[in-house]
Amino acid sequence: MDTWRQRLYVIIFHTDTPAGQRFDNWLLLVILASLVVVMLDSVVAYQQQYASLFDSLEWAFTLLFAVEYGLRLYCSPKPLRYAFSFFGLVDLLAVMPAILSLFFADAQYLMIVRAVRLIRIFRVLKLRQYLSQANFLLTALRGSRQKVTVFLVSVSTLVTVFGALMYVIEGPPNGFTSIPTSIYWAVVTLTTVGYGDITPQTPAGQMLSTLVMITGYSIIAVPTGIFSAELAAAMRGADQLKRDCPGCAKDLHELEAAFCTRCGHPLFPRQDQQR
Amino acid sequence: MDTWRQRLYVIIFHTDTPAGQRFDNWLLLVILASLVVVMLDSVVAYQQQYASLFDSLEWAFTLLFAVEYGLRLYCSPKPLRYAFSFFGLVDLLAVMPAILSLFFADAQYLMIVRAVRLIRIFRVLKLRQYLSQANFLLTALRGSRQKVTVFLVSVSTLVTVFGALMYVIEGPPNGFTSIPTSIYWAVVTLTTVGYGDITPQTPAGQMLSTLVMITGYSIIAVPTGIFSAELAAAMRGADQLKRDCPGCAKDLHELEAAFCTRCGHPLFPRQDQQR
Amino acid sequence: MDTWRQRLYVIIFHTDTPAGQRFDNWLLLVILASLVVVMLDSVVAYQQQYASLFDSLEWAFTLLFAVEYGLRLYCSPKPLRYAFSFFGLVDLLAVMPAILSLFFADAQYLMIVRAVRLIRIFRVLKLRQYLSQANFLLTALRGSRQKVTVFLVSVSTLVTVFGALMYVIEGPPNGFTSIPTSIYWAVVTLTTVGYGDITPQTPAGQMLSTLVMITGYSIIAVPTGIFSAELAAAMRGADQLKRDCPGCAKDLHELEAAFCTRCGHPLFPRQDQQR
Amino acid sequence: MDTWRQRLYVIIFHTDTPAGQRFDNWLLLVILASLVVVMLDSVVAYQQQYASLFDSLEWAFTLLFAVEYGLRLYCSPKPLRYAFSFFGLVDLLAVMPAILSLFFADAQYLMIVRAVRLIRIFRVLKLRQYLSQANFLLTALRGSRQKVTVFLVSVSTLVTVFGALMYVIEGPPNGFTSIPTSIYWAVVTLTTVGYGDITPQTPAGQMLSTLVMITGYSIIAVPTGIFSAELAAAMRGADQLKRDCPGCAKDLHELEAAFCTRCGHPLFPRQDQQR
Repeated sequence: MDTWRQRLYVIIFHTDTPAGQRFDNWLLLVILASLVVVMLDSVVAYQQQYASLFDSLEWAFTLLFAVEYGLRLYCSPKPLRYAFSFFGLVDLLAVMPAILSLFFADAQYLMIVRAVRLIRIFRVLKLRQYLSQANFLLTALRGSRQKVTVFLVSVSTLVTVFGALMYVIEGPPNGFTSIPTSIYWAVVTLTTVGYGDITPQTPAGQMLSTLVMITGYSIIAVPTGIFSAELAAAMRGADQLKRDCPGCAKDLHELEAAFCTRCGHPLFPRQDQQR
Repeated sequence: MDTWRQRLYVIIFHTDTPAGQRFDNWLLLVILASLVVVMLDSVVAYQQQYASLFDSLEWAFTLLFAVEYGLRLYCSPKPLRYAFSFFGLVDLLAVMPAILSLFFADAQYLMIVRAVRLIRIFRVLKLRQYLSQANFLLTALRGSRQKVTVFLVSVSTLVTVFGALMYVIEGPPNGFTSIPTSIYWAVVTLTTVGYGDITPQTPAGQMLSTLVMITGYSIIAVPTGIFSAELAAAMRGADQLKRDCPGCAKDLHELEAAFCTRCGHPLFPRQDQQR
Repeated sequence: MDTWRQRLYVIIFHTDTPAGQRFDNWLLLVILASLVVVMLDSVVAYQQQYASLFDSLEWAFTLLFAVEYGLRLYCSPKPLRYAFSFFGLVDLLAVMPAILSLFFADAQYLMIVRAVRLIRIFRVLKLRQYLSQANFLLTALRGSRQKVTVFLVSVSTLVTVFGALMYVIEGPPNGFTSIPTSIYWAVVTLTTVGYGDITPQTPAGQMLSTLVMITGYSIIAVPTGIFSAELAAAMRGADQLKRDCPGCAKDLHELEAAFCTRCGHPLFPRQDQQR
Repeated sequence: MDTWRQRLYVIIFHTDTPAGQRFDNWLLLVILASLVVVMLDSVVAYQQQYASLFDSLEWAFTLLFAVEYGLRLYCSPKPLRYAFSFFGLVDLLAVMPAILSLFFADAQYLMIVRAVRLIRIFRVLKLRQYLSQANFLLTALRGSRQKVTVFLVSVSTLVTVFGALMYVIEGPPNGFTSIPTSIYWAVVTLTTVGYGDITPQTPAGQMLSTLVMITGYSIIAVPTGIFSAELAAAMRGADQLKRDCPGCAKDLHELEAAFCTRCGHPLFPRQDQQR
């Protein structure tokens, strides 16, 4: 009985075993299939033809995922810990929309959140390498968190002020119907997306938006610079060399250090001294 | 009496005290609220319904900020110095627009400049860390100031020439109604914003704009490269001591270094040598 | 007889000989010419006038390339190896479309794949330098392969989720006719291309797309950061020798280094020590 | 007589003297004024009102610049060398368009090339610093020349192939009227400009353009990475230390080197050895 649970646990949670590998491969396929169905279901042409088919398929997938979720809860040694882990919540989210769709139309399209489950793909690809790479990225992101906050606060201030100015300069007749809309325009412009659904008409407006564009074009350098620097640091790894100084207790030195910075004792014996 | 002023001073200016913290939190909330009101006021639908409400609210906020400004002036030991400090001017700006709006319509929308006051947020978040991070960015920006000037001058020259060329090639019938407009188009294109409100129609024009786009796409690398390099330098420099080693050319050492890591020469005169 | 084949081989395959150089120059010219013809052929105006001329020219070029392909097969010492090499397949592709065009209209436009043959240009320019430069890029790309995979998977997940959300929020009436279309919109926005053929109309949609833009604007930093770091590493590594010093942890040395710059330990065993 | 020429020479060519400084300041002002006139002249509204005024002004400026050009030729010790220097040609170009405008309409708008003369501004700002900064940029650009060539060739190949594919997929009815036009679209998309004047309509076309966008979004990293790396290298300056090894003739060592890589001799005397 208990061995069953353990075998299930190995199959469902351990990707490094052949059985687990096979299970995760199938799971990914099913998720992809369900996503395809949701997408096709949203295309009017197909929707009208295969409405009932799509419905039944979506319920089938939901059932499948519900069962899977149940099994995961059942066989995991610490059910609660799994339930509140990132993947646990994602797995739950994959089942919810169908239930919601009973009460709200359109809700079934939220099934698309199942896309998030595809992140399991890293489990199937050689996990470790990718995780280590992801760690580099995360370290870099964590390291640049504060700089980015500073950056984002400044940007949102810029966008608000620019937006309000444009609202005053151009005004509703030229499409800047309100300050929120103008702020939306400012973001569209500053990020160099430039839909063109709202564009300055007056010379003054065009000059100001020129300023906004140049600003956006220049400050795109900031997050990039921040991230590059952080990532380079993360990849260079520890900038310090762990090695006890024979002269004193200092055990951290610059990578290229030949002498201890504290007592000046050479860190390495010279050949002529060995002989 | 004077203790009152001092207590006020501590509450209003010192974020590191619990009272000051609370004060700044409330202040931020009020600022945000006032911003929301200004924004909603600009949306026609709401404007028509709640015009009077919005007006009274805006006056209330203005009064509040005026009082706050007065108190700051009153309780700060050096009123003038505060008045002409960055934040002093911003606080003043937060009150002006309302007065202006008595004479010019639309002026009340300028109340949006209050957004700038939100920069106080760094006071509320753990200030020091963020300031140090901001310093990194500022150091990098200062370091790249000249390079950026060179860059901007070249870009504006490019834009002017490209704009004039397009005006000659495409001309008014295709939307390039004047050289300033064409320059506006050139900026829109070079910064990869691409509204699409003005687009080349003739083959010649399309070829030239292709050139402009490739240029813009390539030289976006320049500010990024400049900034990355400067920022990396600023970050590297942070935990290093700039000091020439008397024994060799090495000029960057650990902050608490007493000997050069390269030649082992003492960085600060030793007793036995002074004797 | 055999000498003929060898001389042909030298002319066709060896760019470093004057004859080969001349041959490749002519080849490039012919390829360019054929490309121009294909392009002009697609312009209605010219098409109607010179239809027959273009046809005959295209057949002429096809014949020429077919002959060249035959000769390459004939004179290369290892025909099969050439046939399945990158350039071998490209050369074959340059001939196919014409044959296809007998069965499918429009197929002749695929002759444009001949553009790929232009990569031979690196053969004509001083080959070595460019290849070495290309190697830097490739090394950097290979090094960042995994990081980029992580990045792309995350981006596609983001795009899918954002797209579905917008479909639910905006819906068909505002142009988001289906989830695939919405995903297309999300890509257009996240990459800051911003055609403007589909734009959010509802305030909720505009807020969400603002989020998408800021995200796209910020994460454009990620691939750049990755690539910069990798490229810097690749360039640094180029003129350095990867070899652990037996005396200390230093593992990068000048190419012709005989002793470690840090601890002075010989990198290769000295006679007196071997004795 | 000759002293006159010399004094003129100093005033016109030497910015470091007060007289020269004053001259260049005035020159910049005049150039700016002439640019403003050309721009205003292109605005229909003003054109109609002040046509004659603008004409006379433009002729005045042209005369002025012609005289200046003459004086430069007259007073420079090596007239020919100046005439064929970069600035010499630019100064000539500033006069030509007016003469051309006698034969071709619109030619006077080419006077805008005078914008290039504004580069003299670096003369007026503290010249040296800016030139040194510009040198960094140029060194970086020169260093990345080949990499960029490789990059641009690949990009143009990509663009050509993508363009042709879209022409085959979408075709004239959807705005892709010819292969050149489709290539123009491909550039607009790959560079993330995205005018939206031509957009894919068919699902297949949208999928392909999604691919193009992601590609463009990713490879924008390449030039940036190249440039950042090169610039960092340029700023780090010589990575090598000039110092004769006491043991052998080698005089170039790594910056952090404490021992000679060729003979293993310590590069610097140790304290304990001095005593």
